[in-house]
Amino acid sequence: MQNFEFYNPTRVLFGKGMIARLDEQLSPEARVLVLYGGSSAERSGTLNEVRAALGNRTFREFGGIEANPTYETLMKAVAMVRAENLDFLLAVGGGSVMDGTKFVAAAVPYEGEPWDILVSKGEAAKTALPLGTVVTLPATGSEMNCLSVISRQSTGDKLLFSNPLVYPRFSVLDPMRTMSLPMKQVINGVVDSFVHVMEQYMTYPVDGMAQDRFSEGLLSSLVEIGPRIIATPDDYDLRSNLMWVATLALNGLIGAGVPHDWTTHMIGHEITAKYHIDHARTLAMVFPALLKVRRAEKRAKLLQYAARVWNLTEGTEDERIDAVIRKTEEFFENLGVPTRLSAYDIGAEGINDLVRQLEDHGMTHLGENGDVTLDVSRRILEAAA
Amino acid sequence: MQNFEFYNPTRVLFGKGMIARLDEQLSPEARVLVLYGGSSAERSGTLNEVRAALGNRTFREFGGIEANPTYETLMKAVAMVRAENLDFLLAVGGGSVMDGTKFVAAAVPYEGEPWDILVSKGEAAKTALPLGTVVTLPATGSEMNCLSVISRQSTGDKLLFSNPLVYPRFSVLDPMRTMSLPMKQVINGVVDSFVHVMEQYMTYPVDGMAQDRFSEGLLSSLVEIGPRIIATPDDYDLRSNLMWVATLALNGLIGAGVPHDWTTHMIGHEITAKYHIDHARTLAMVFPALLKVRRAEKRAKLLQYAARVWNLTEGTEDERIDAVIRKTEEFFENLGVPTRLSAYDIGAEGINDLVRQLEDHGMTHLGENGDVTLDVSRRILEAAA
Repeated sequence: MQNFEFYNPTRVLFGKGMIARLDEQLSPEARVLVLYGGSSAERSGTLNEVRAALGNRTFREFGGIEANPTYETLMKAVAMVRAENLDFLLAVGGGSVMDGTKFVAAAVPYEGEPWDILVSKGEAAKTALPLGTVVTLPATGSEMNCLSVISRQSTGDKLLFSNPLVYPRFSVLDPMRTMSLPMKQVINGVVDSFVHVMEQYMTYPVDGMAQDRFSEGLLSSLVEIGPRIIATPDDYDLRSNLMWVATLALNGLIGAGVPHDWTTHMIGHEITAKYHIDHARTLAMVFPALLKVRRAEKRAKLLQYAARVWNLTEGTEDERIDAVIRKTEEFFENLGVPTRLSAYDIGAEGINDLVRQLEDHGMTHLGENGDVTLDVSRRILEAAA
Repeated sequence: MQNFEFYNPTRVLFGKGMIARLDEQLSPEARVLVLYGGSSAERSGTLNEVRAALGNRTFREFGGIEANPTYETLMKAVAMVRAENLDFLLAVGGGSVMDGTKFVAAAVPYEGEPWDILVSKGEAAKTALPLGTVVTLPATGSEMNCLSVISRQSTGDKLLFSNPLVYPRFSVLDPMRTMSLPMKQVINGVVDSFVHVMEQYMTYPVDGMAQDRFSEGLLSSLVEIGPRIIATPDDYDLRSNLMWVATLALNGLIGAGVPHDWTTHMIGHEITAKYHIDHARTLAMVFPALLKVRRAEKRAKLLQYAARVWNLTEGTEDERIDAVIRKTEEFFENLGVPTRLSAYDIGAEGINDLVRQLEDHGMTHLGENGDVTLDVSRRILEAAA
């Protein structure tokens, strides 16, 4: 196992009715900004439940944070917080709203140009407003980590920052609040969580027994949850399990002490930046292709994954690897999520553009060994064609 | 899944050489008390490594915290902290030293009789000194939870308290620091961790997918680690895995949102209080006996445990349950840990005394359903005879 530091101070309030406990999480003096996305937070009743829970506190609202939240929109929230002297941010939504809120939290007290926070990968932020979240979409794990991905409309950039200052103080996870989601978004959450786990698992063995077992446990759970949640969308237990699994998939725990390979996310970000395809759907194309191109480097973990998650123990090693890559593709496809760029009419020219974007963003040495060069990324995209 | 709250702010610094990072965890002004147990901390070199890492800070030392730490000893540390105006506690040791340090942390600022903190199960503590730990013995998980078990010599009482104020601010886990432990203590850690997991797992199903998978992952890891660590005691990776598994076994995560059954610990505590048998060794006697007496209530989880941890899927359900209870006993016995009271010459009279102690301590409704009455506890002890 590799040396590691693990720290995660977010308080999770999980279950039916937990939004009512917002009250006890906030000081009576807190001047709260409630941030949310589109009209679904209103329609689903979540915003009203939050308003009721906030009681007589001073609070203001900022809606309209888009999927792949933009710097341009968020800077309006920054201006509002500064102008009105608000001091606590409450994100009500999914990953985009939570990520956006983290950026606002760091940007408000930042004295320079807040985009620098992203350029510095988070290092530039030396203080941040406290924030909490009420999660409506289980997928990104943003509710229990200190990561945030922000896009800049004017340039097409999509950058990630990380800073322990933006760990949510608390996150309320009420699975009931996910019941009204379109099934497409629920399934995106399954795929996103699955790939999050994989990016901390599918590298090379370092004998992290608990990390491997936990990752395999989350993968097995998602393999079970995916088809069942389509069949019985009103099942509270399935919603609960997806919600908690999605959080655990990216709260730092399974990734502590093991190598990571975030190639899939990095390539996927470029696809979203160019084609505006849902984040999770980009991952479903890139990840199986990554397994094909990198099967030699990931051989030992592919065999372990085959045996422990899919119970594939018969045949030669190469047959098992073939089989488990196929299983992974089928898992996505059976959820109605395409695994080919052609499904979105992305061809050879698109691949050229995506490789150029990777180059522009300095993504020239990705992967657990830093050897996913632009050429390897091109081969991955070609394998996904 | 049940509703839950999860909060764990302890920062873990894990790996070889991490003690050197103590420095950055403490303010230069901190007035530190280093608390430790017997002479092994000195002999093993851990104390010297800690002293070196503390550098030029003001620090004092308090040694002699015993296994099953006593109120009487700890109150001497309380007096010292108060007299010398120390403001940070650093536990260097195993569960006893860490638990004891938590009590000192809560007792120093407590205005009444500190034993009340234990009687109130922790509720009476409204403030506590900050504390950190340097772990030398993986077993209790105390390094990443807010639990503490303290004994009172004068009365023979052994009580547990819990309070988020005593979460360690940080815990340094360097597996190298466990290399000099007597193998008996290492194995006690394996058994203690195994039973910790079981007490949050072996109840009835509530469809907590991640919790079950994580628990099964920790159990599988311990089943693998136990015999291997005896065979190759110098293996750093095994030491690392035991250390991290022991922490994860009782840091609140696997127990969030699922029922618990702490019967084994409660009965075990009475055995230790009366016979001074190592904590873990009492668990190895009680737990298999509990499975036998409570096999009807735990039926579904016993079958799941049999299939997922021991790969027992053949035969009738009752045959599989018989087999997995036998496997569990053999696991302990093969580690050299007896599973029978008779191994310590505890007979019918001893059982009577232990049941009386349980009654004296109000342990009359244990278990996940509160239906482990004194009569059931007696049957468990008889099944362990």
